[in-house]
Amino acid sequence: MEVEAKKWGFQGKRDQLNAPPIITVRGALKLLMANINKDNSFSVVPLGRGDPSNFPSFRTTPAAEDAIVDAVRSGKHNCYAPTVGILPARRAIADHLSRDLPYKLLPDDVYLTIGSKQGIEIVTTVLSRPGANILLPRPGFPYYEVWCAYNHLEMRHYDLLPEKGWEVDLDAVETLANENTVAMVIINPGNPCGNVFSYEHLNKVAETARKLGILVIADEAYDNLAFGSTRYVPMRVFGSTVPVLTLGSLSKRWIVPGWRLGWLVTSDPNGILQKSGVIDSIVGYLNISSDPATFIQAAIPLILENTKEEFFSKIICLLREGADICYNRIEEIPCLTCPKKPEGSMFVMVKLNLSMLEDINDDMDFCLKLAKEESVIILPGIAVGMKDWLRITFAVESCLLQQGLARVKAFCCRHAKKQ
Amino acid sequence: MEVEAKKWGFQGKRDQLNAPPIITVRGALKLLMANINKDNSFSVVPLGRGDPSNFPSFRTTPAAEDAIVDAVRSGKHNCYAPTVGILPARRAIADHLSRDLPYKLLPDDVYLTIGSKQGIEIVTTVLSRPGANILLPRPGFPYYEVWCAYNHLEMRHYDLLPEKGWEVDLDAVETLANENTVAMVIINPGNPCGNVFSYEHLNKVAETARKLGILVIADEAYDNLAFGSTRYVPMRVFGSTVPVLTLGSLSKRWIVPGWRLGWLVTSDPNGILQKSGVIDSIVGYLNISSDPATFIQAAIPLILENTKEEFFSKIICLLREGADICYNRIEEIPCLTCPKKPEGSMFVMVKLNLSMLEDINDDMDFCLKLAKEESVIILPGIAVGMKDWLRITFAVESCLLQQGLARVKAFCCRHAKKQ
Repeated sequence: MEVEAKKWGFQGKRDQLNAPPIITVRGALKLLMANINKDNSFSVVPLGRGDPSNFPSFRTTPAAEDAIVDAVRSGKHNCYAPTVGILPARRAIADHLSRDLPYKLLPDDVYLTIGSKQGIEIVTTVLSRPGANILLPRPGFPYYEVWCAYNHLEMRHYDLLPEKGWEVDLDAVETLANENTVAMVIINPGNPCGNVFSYEHLNKVAETARKLGILVIADEAYDNLAFGSTRYVPMRVFGSTVPVLTLGSLSKRWIVPGWRLGWLVTSDPNGILQKSGVIDSIVGYLNISSDPATFIQAAIPLILENTKEEFFSKIICLLREGADICYNRIEEIPCLTCPKKPEGSMFVMVKLNLSMLEDINDDMDFCLKLAKEESVIILPGIAVGMKDWLRITFAVESCLLQQGLARVKAFCCRHAKKQ
Repeated sequence: MEVEAKKWGFQGKRDQLNAPPIITVRGALKLLMANINKDNSFSVVPLGRGDPSNFPSFRTTPAAEDAIVDAVRSGKHNCYAPTVGILPARRAIADHLSRDLPYKLLPDDVYLTIGSKQGIEIVTTVLSRPGANILLPRPGFPYYEVWCAYNHLEMRHYDLLPEKGWEVDLDAVETLANENTVAMVIINPGNPCGNVFSYEHLNKVAETARKLGILVIADEAYDNLAFGSTRYVPMRVFGSTVPVLTLGSLSKRWIVPGWRLGWLVTSDPNGILQKSGVIDSIVGYLNISSDPATFIQAAIPLILENTKEEFFSKIICLLREGADICYNRIEEIPCLTCPKKPEGSMFVMVKLNLSMLEDINDDMDFCLKLAKEESVIILPGIAVGMKDWLRITFAVESCLLQQGLARVKAFCCRHAKKQ
């Protein structure tokens, strides 16, 4: 047996799984948490990830909990679901996402997923073929990189431009794309930048994609979480210009990331995705992959119907307040620069001026020492593709946010170069 | 755009997804349902799949529903879970599965999965590498074939022997295995055969696998659903002989397949899986794949603790009654033979004697015509690897089972060759 064990050495898949040197958000946070000094009397301030669900202020609406409880208590949803999702949920999501659209989505345009992360798995899987490439934003969400690497789908990164409020560098998109480019990914509202693309900018994205003959994958995991002056516009508004694959979920807007319920929606009034076989591939992959729990699917119509506007506006207020606190506190810290006040999502990207610090090598070193000395968790920019930047979430209780940023300030003062 | 659409023609993944001519259970049932004659006044009798959750007699225990409701109402489990699952659930499952074991499972031996189907995805993914092969049972559960094909893991089929009560053909296992064989799969209690392997037979399986230097993947999705004279023994009892990867779930024993909560358990007191890198690969794949809903994970300890023995024995009684009805009714039908009365799971395999039928070409033709003429859904054997056999589930309300089998009898009489 000892000898034979060698054959499970998995040169194949194992390399695919373990080899790509991509730092995931989960991986980086785990590393930082391990660095917390447990002798420290400070409580941990977690500004590393977009999951405020355990803070009392961010508790989800009772309407959503009620809908789940009703679905469980009915005893009617203990059964397997169709691989694409149950019809009432697909219909409710189609109706919900059709508001303000120049055309109407049908239930068949909606595929239920295990959060928008499974949506990323699905789109990168069905679009990969030998030689194909995909355009990803930098900074971005590293789960795309992980799945592209796993699927051998070549990644080409275009920049988001901090000096232009994190707009897409459309010139770079045109330069990077070639005849093997299958799609470009945009994340709006922005993770990690906290920006919201304007209607005009999205229109340019659509026109550029149309010209290049590529699909747009619109990651709208943070849809409607916009609280600045730019109105949130879903990319599917431009579905007649270019086929759009939207990824969305309950996770962020309803503050229930653990419920694992999302959707992949095809917005393509011209039927291009059907003709080109993308739809068949999506259905084919769903046939072999896992489904969200049936009773959570069954709760969707009531969740969408019964969630009151007050819940959404409360969350928006909390996020706006958090963004204000974050932006203002960071302005007081000389070695940190925030190029744009966040208007959406739960994050802001902050530039680290290492020349002002004495004994900090890079963003990861900053975050490791910050975790150790101040018990504050902040994601190093390297985990989202931008070295020597930081991603900070402001979606936490405001007192905790104040406390955390005060500690960041103290940390920066302590490590500042002497004049 | 029209021209460009060609590039989404996906010669790569698409072929992998759509090309393998594997008839899945879901695919076959969909085909049959489409063949139901809607003008028929008969109600549909679904004897095609193992999901009795919508029959009143098979409703899950209130203890399980209560545990879910408590977890949702607590508001504490709306957050992301660790990729391997939350600790209290892993601990509860480790304790639950350690009963009657000669060693104790630890929480770290347990990985939560989205039903045992995701378990199949995980094991076939982490074990695949160029040139590797895996031994699968015939008849079996076609989800293995689908994932092996997707992962380019070569499949070699050993027979289950009807004349020996569906025992594993261990001589065939020895002949099929070579230095590139990584594992053999056993399904116990048996899907589709309804058999239960004896302790002695499992011991032989373990000794054979040890000799060949291969892992045993023990698919115990139907664990404890045994109602005949053979006692159910989990394969992990033999973990000291050979490393065992167990796949299990709430789905069948608690009659909640739609809850999508299962487990992958490593039983390996000698630490071979750790040394050979299998554990790392499992964790690596879980890091990039989807998780079961956190509040369903959180309900696990209470579900395991509070489910009363009476619930399990009620389900066992229902299944035993169903198996009896099924076996006895089939004995009355000349063209059908049941080599062994089922002792476990929810299924029985029945041989079709086509020479006694006038206008039936094969098992698929039988099932299509049966669906059309009698509105009875039965799975053709071809979908589980045995042409001209049938897989019938007896896990339905007994009156419906009687009705369905009476219609099968009428159908067979009508299509019988004239003497």
